[in-house]
Amino acid sequence: MKTRLKLTAALLAATLSGASMASPLIIEEQGSFATGGKVVTSPGTYTGTPDIVKGKSGNDFMDVFRASIKAGGQTLHGDHATVFYQIPAEPRKLPLVFLHGAGQSIRTWQTTPDGREGFQNIFLRKRYPVYLVDQPRRGWSGRSTVDGTIPATPDDQFWFAQFRVGVWPNFFKGVAFPQDSASLDQFFRQMTPNTAPFDTGVISDSLQALFDRIGDGVLVTHSQGGIVGWFAGIKSPKHVKAIVAYEPGNFPFPEGEVPPTIQSKFGDIPPARVSREDFAHLTKMPIVIYFGDNIRDKPSDVQGEDQWRIRLALARQWADVVNRHGGDATVVHLPDAGIRGNTHFPMADLNNVEVADHLASWLHTKKLDR
Amino acid sequence: MKTRLKLTAALLAATLSGASMASPLIIEEQGSFATGGKVVTSPGTYTGTPDIVKGKSGNDFMDVFRASIKAGGQTLHGDHATVFYQIPAEPRKLPLVFLHGAGQSIRTWQTTPDGREGFQNIFLRKRYPVYLVDQPRRGWSGRSTVDGTIPATPDDQFWFAQFRVGVWPNFFKGVAFPQDSASLDQFFRQMTPNTAPFDTGVISDSLQALFDRIGDGVLVTHSQGGIVGWFAGIKSPKHVKAIVAYEPGNFPFPEGEVPPTIQSKFGDIPPARVSREDFAHLTKMPIVIYFGDNIRDKPSDVQGEDQWRIRLALARQWADVVNRHGGDATVVHLPDAGIRGNTHFPMADLNNVEVADHLASWLHTKKLDR
Repeated sequence: MKTRLKLTAALLAATLSGASMASPLIIEEQGSFATGGKVVTSPGTYTGTPDIVKGKSGNDFMDVFRASIKAGGQTLHGDHATVFYQIPAEPRKLPLVFLHGAGQSIRTWQTTPDGREGFQNIFLRKRYPVYLVDQPRRGWSGRSTVDGTIPATPDDQFWFAQFRVGVWPNFFKGVAFPQDSASLDQFFRQMTPNTAPFDTGVISDSLQALFDRIGDGVLVTHSQGGIVGWFAGIKSPKHVKAIVAYEPGNFPFPEGEVPPTIQSKFGDIPPARVSREDFAHLTKMPIVIYFGDNIRDKPSDVQGEDQWRIRLALARQWADVVNRHGGDATVVHLPDAGIRGNTHFPMADLNNVEVADHLASWLHTKKLDR
Repeated sequence: MKTRLKLTAALLAATLSGASMASPLIIEEQGSFATGGKVVTSPGTYTGTPDIVKGKSGNDFMDVFRASIKAGGQTLHGDHATVFYQIPAEPRKLPLVFLHGAGQSIRTWQTTPDGREGFQNIFLRKRYPVYLVDQPRRGWSGRSTVDGTIPATPDDQFWFAQFRVGVWPNFFKGVAFPQDSASLDQFFRQMTPNTAPFDTGVISDSLQALFDRIGDGVLVTHSQGGIVGWFAGIKSPKHVKAIVAYEPGNFPFPEGEVPPTIQSKFGDIPPARVSREDFAHLTKMPIVIYFGDNIRDKPSDVQGEDQWRIRLALARQWADVVNRHGGDATVVHLPDAGIRGNTHFPMADLNNVEVADHLASWLHTKKLDR
């Protein structure tokens, strides 16, 4: 009864504020935390007062810092994920846990490059709790237990191609991507580097810790995060109730059923492999895999078309194996569903509301929207 | 009228949901964007098809990537800030813009290590729009135009001391910091490294771009961010209506009035300096500078006590110079205001609601809460 009254009041507030997409978000709770990770300890003894300090006043701060480090006996907490979450009013039971792809962060799911609402807001409006992850060694989770180097390498045009926006300086015809320079500037500035080497095991461990903390949920991955997502499903089969993968980079086939590598001028994808036992977990949860537009059936001289040709083919092969083993995996090529022009970032494209609605329908069909 | 109705409905929703601190946040708008930054371009010509691709199918992806980079003609967008913002219902006119300190990120202002609400939520509940910044080369803003290296150096105990929690493994007596291991783990995991060298000019440029975009606001800084904040005030004197600095690391004195360096065993602080013209901007906006507890008047053998002794002294010297030039700078040593036990992170300490209330009162006194 109290809950019902609360919703009524919230909806009244929303309605009075104007148009539906401009209605306020009613957030019951929001916050952030770290999850998973490791601790390493340096040899030596920490005393609080390195030798340099004992001698004299007037030291250089960095000299004191270095002397303290050298004396050792200190810990480093690293390789955790960081999570920002929001729980809307009248939340649905299963939250959506969002994991970004290569060179990205929580930003993938927020405001689009042209300033529209991303999946964070769109699914809050659909009353899903959202958990947004910065994976270990990326973004807010930059502290690692291993060293990192970050070269300042100009490569925007490579990613413009790889992310299927077009072939620089041209956009694909009909691409669902804003073509003004301000939006493109924002798009490029969403990139943020690895602070230490990418590690599927470390990242999927942090997701396992996240699901241990929050309980059941639906994992939504993007691109390179897709690879991690399959392993998170294997590690947390109890809590990962479904996996939604936007253009995942690879797929784990069971030993004995690994298909040959599909070749591409722009880089092969040797299929990933796991034990039959591990694979079996992925046959116990509904899975949907989305791919966007401008992906060819045949080899292409265009990087984006060719790179995602082989991944879409691999996705179909993998879904067949999953389903042959009693699983429930669906591959949705968005143009086949009448949703056209999508790049590698369907969650941010001009038609991202349509893309989100397709997912919402799938969640409903699978009874994951209770 | 419409606005009034909306607030009533929002308050109704809030009231019906239960206790006041557990009431929902009514968010009119939230999102994220990049601001400021640079673009660099590599020599060469981008074609979309590096030579390696022309020869054959079956290449390695990383080889194709490296060949594409080598061919050049590509851009890198870096050195921007990234901002997450939330506008509450019935917002006050001036937003608060929050800038973190060394080794930190937006996380500083979010959930506290022991899971309570941080300044983000607390000031949203006070109806302030909040803009939370990841400075260039930190967190979500990891992409830089210069190279970076990140050594995995165990140094938690150094920062435990520097941040005035205590001297490892002991906490200061009466410190307003949670002493359970889970909270300490969360505290350490808030740290995230520079992805390229810290640069006050680059960061204050990004803040100038932010204020150009959002207009007038109050800048709230922490620690190393304090140094940046003074320069942001100098660069955006029109839009920065006030500066609130929690334990800033340094202070820019006008040429000719720079005091002698105060020595510390744990590292001196040579006072920063600016031109008299630049300094004059900081005499035109109200400024409040907060310091926490466990700071001694006299030299101490305890790192945290001694390091903040010299900064508190410098703050008082600087406020005197500002006020002598007609400015309005106040230094609040929190224990003098009856708020005790604070570490270097008053915004997250056990008494952070009291700390926030003190700031809210100051904003009211200065008519910045309209």
